[in-house]
Amino acid sequence: MTTSNRPIALIIGAGDHLGAAIARRFAREGYYIVATRRRGDLHALVSDIQAIGSEATALHSDARDEIQVTELIDKVESELGPIRVAVFNVGGNVRFSITETTTRVYRKVWEMCALAGFLVGREVARKMISRQQGSIIFTGASASLRGSSGFAAFAGGKHALRALAQSMSRELGPQGIHVAHVVIDGLIENEATKAILPDLFASKGEDGIIQPDDLAEVYWQIHNQPRSTWTFEQDVRPYSETW
Amino acid sequence: MTTSNRPIALIIGAGDHLGAAIARRFAREGYYIVATRRRGDLHALVSDIQAIGSEATALHSDARDEIQVTELIDKVESELGPIRVAVFNVGGNVRFSITETTTRVYRKVWEMCALAGFLVGREVARKMISRQQGSIIFTGASASLRGSSGFAAFAGGKHALRALAQSMSRELGPQGIHVAHVVIDGLIENEATKAILPDLFASKGEDGIIQPDDLAEVYWQIHNQPRSTWTFEQDVRPYSETW
Amino acid sequence: MTTSNRPIALIIGAGDHLGAAIARRFAREGYYIVATRRRGDLHALVSDIQAIGSEATALHSDARDEIQVTELIDKVESELGPIRVAVFNVGGNVRFSITETTTRVYRKVWEMCALAGFLVGREVARKMISRQQGSIIFTGASASLRGSSGFAAFAGGKHALRALAQSMSRELGPQGIHVAHVVIDGLIENEATKAILPDLFASKGEDGIIQPDDLAEVYWQIHNQPRSTWTFEQDVRPYSETW
Amino acid sequence: MTTSNRPIALIIGAGDHLGAAIARRFAREGYYIVATRRRGDLHALVSDIQAIGSEATALHSDARDEIQVTELIDKVESELGPIRVAVFNVGGNVRFSITETTTRVYRKVWEMCALAGFLVGREVARKMISRQQGSIIFTGASASLRGSSGFAAFAGGKHALRALAQSMSRELGPQGIHVAHVVIDGLIENEATKAILPDLFASKGEDGIIQPDDLAEVYWQIHNQPRSTWTFEQDVRPYSETW
Repeated sequence: MTTSNRPIALIIGAGDHLGAAIARRFAREGYYIVATRRRGDLHALVSDIQAIGSEATALHSDARDEIQVTELIDKVESELGPIRVAVFNVGGNVRFSITETTTRVYRKVWEMCALAGFLVGREVARKMISRQQGSIIFTGASASLRGSSGFAAFAGGKHALRALAQSMSRELGPQGIHVAHVVIDGLIENEATKAILPDLFASKGEDGIIQPDDLAEVYWQIHNQPRSTWTFEQDVRPYSETW
Repeated sequence: MTTSNRPIALIIGAGDHLGAAIARRFAREGYYIVATRRRGDLHALVSDIQAIGSEATALHSDARDEIQVTELIDKVESELGPIRVAVFNVGGNVRFSITETTTRVYRKVWEMCALAGFLVGREVARKMISRQQGSIIFTGASASLRGSSGFAAFAGGKHALRALAQSMSRELGPQGIHVAHVVIDGLIENEATKAILPDLFASKGEDGIIQPDDLAEVYWQIHNQPRSTWTFEQDVRPYSETW
Repeated sequence: MTTSNRPIALIIGAGDHLGAAIARRFAREGYYIVATRRRGDLHALVSDIQAIGSEATALHSDARDEIQVTELIDKVESELGPIRVAVFNVGGNVRFSITETTTRVYRKVWEMCALAGFLVGREVARKMISRQQGSIIFTGASASLRGSSGFAAFAGGKHALRALAQSMSRELGPQGIHVAHVVIDGLIENEATKAILPDLFASKGEDGIIQPDDLAEVYWQIHNQPRSTWTFEQDVRPYSETW
Repeated sequence: MTTSNRPIALIIGAGDHLGAAIARRFAREGYYIVATRRRGDLHALVSDIQAIGSEATALHSDARDEIQVTELIDKVESELGPIRVAVFNVGGNVRFSITETTTRVYRKVWEMCALAGFLVGREVARKMISRQQGSIIFTGASASLRGSSGFAAFAGGKHALRALAQSMSRELGPQGIHVAHVVIDGLIENEATKAILPDLFASKGEDGIIQPDDLAEVYWQIHNQPRSTWTFEQDVRPYSETW
């Protein structure tokens, strides 16, 4: 890491689609991006950000691990500067009937969705509180609002994350920290999923799938709201969604 | 009215605070503003819009009256051009214990909140459907989500408006029309209310009250979302809100 | 009407199915039943109640009409005695696309669902408040919680009714009046509907449709709860419901 | 354990107040009670049940431990007979500001509220599915529906439990298993809490606190509903609750 005068955006869960798009969106505004994911390539994202004209540090870090999260955030703050916005974008969507949901799966999905969100949210809040400034944005899903057959684990994790965001928002808002929750209520464009479900994707038509760059704009807008008018929750879906 | 090449924004309920701020926000982007309210001055708003460098038609019209709403929208479409965005911003907050709520009040509040929203939404939708384009944005309140002691009439009207917005969104989204609902969960800056409740306003501190211009930005952003990523519902509140 | 020592249950919307079943359920416990509907036969219900061994007055009354509601409730209280429980069971489910929903339909559905509920709730509350005792139970539907394509009118009316019930519950609970809202989330057994949709009914299997007598039990249980433990809202659906 | 012809009710979290009251309620109807809690006295409960004229097995078991839960339920089913109803009544209400919530607390509260509910629900479902019969009832709280300042951990656990109940209900209902969720929206009578907060309890007045025996009735009623009319969710609060 190197020092920079740029404001810092921390993107936890900087996967190939939404997470990377959010990173690029903030980079376009001159933010220094700290992008993490547990595993998977991060070089393409760093190149993209440099091509945009900004700077980035990308690293593998497991958001479910208290020590890794604490060390990451301490390091960013001491070596790079104050985190201006943190986006928590880790998830783990699985579908199993209740009797086929193993304890390992149930626990792991909660760790990815909720425990990791708690660790990141708490550690970032600890830094932001003394500055009375900063945004923490959590990514939710349709399952944040409703349990469905086969989704006991995923809906459980996402419901818990929403409860975290609500609790943090009510506590930290008056301390100047903007906590928000984005409910993604539809499919996100994703080459891997499209390869598996070509017919589903084709049936949605043009723009019928959420485009990551379009969705990234929502995060940017939330972060830039003046404190007289903060969004706590915003849902998004493609126009094609009939439900 | 005169013909104009500007896109048209129809603001129903262009009161002195939020409605006027939304009108100015769209005017800043070059929109031709058609602003209505049932009564009250509209000259200041027209002057503001002209000072910004755009154009406006302002008129008194009762959004609860089917004939007035139909004629208004027909006239705008035939004389000025297609409505690109319609904002429904009429409300009527009253507080009475249930036994002191007259039938006249109960009916009138519903007519302002819900019937008027239905009339405007339906008439605008009729125009937009053939074009498969346009935004319709409804203004909600905390009472859209929750009934409270003394608010049977207001919560009833606002709940019905939200049901309208949801129903329209699910029907019209696939037809290319973006229907959204903004939940305002806090006080809006308002000289008249501040004069009546100076201590309450003072207790909120700087920016502790929603600033109409800040809130107007939310409407502008919703209208500009690409159709892959449409917000249906977004809540806003000042940072000072602890509840 | 005649004087009776029985406690009095007022059933507004005593149709052939749920309303009649609720009336019979309270009659079985010795309640004097005052059953109203706007039109339609009431003789069979009175006979049923007499066969059970209780008494009833059945009359046609339009719950959307303030004068009729006020006179009805005054008359019951002055000629028969204090209303112990009132059930509001009027509704009007229609489905129209938004552009085909006439103002007349939109208004009428609200008058049936919400205005009538308000009139009955308010007038009954006025009597019960001085006694600090009594139950008022409103019948809701899936559309009380969610708007859907084609249901702007019905969802609007049912949302408004729920807001009324919530507001009344929070105001009147501390005054000793139990206000509750039952959300019916499925089809109710109904010969007329079954004749029109035989395949749908057949597909649900045995007990796959809500049986009015089973549902009436829920109303009886709510009315009998001790004040330390009052239900505000309870949803019911047949086991076959997968959604 | 001994064999018995009585139907079996499994009460997980048979604490001194609500859990014990539910056990006694089912015992009064002739159910054989299997009551567990992690630690704390169970003799008084067994004596109560014997005094009522029924039978009970009470044992210490940790509902967060997969092996203990699996063994418990296998043992009940093989030695006593089929579980007719299971009540999950474990919770862990704590209040800490977000920055003072340790990872240990956050995880532990989730394990008590949600993981334990998952383990009990899944293991009981595995037994009930082949019989296409039985009830599983989960105990929720105000925090099941809403996060608040200081309640990130508790609201997270309770939200996740509700998501579990919803998911199980939608999957298992059509298989003949009734899954329900009771939302307790108020204080429960409890000598220990009353000793700590005497003024709060006194301020609520007579019956202003939920009485465990009154609340236990709700569980009994849910279990006895015919399958045409099943409650998924029911909230309860004392009449004195103004919120």
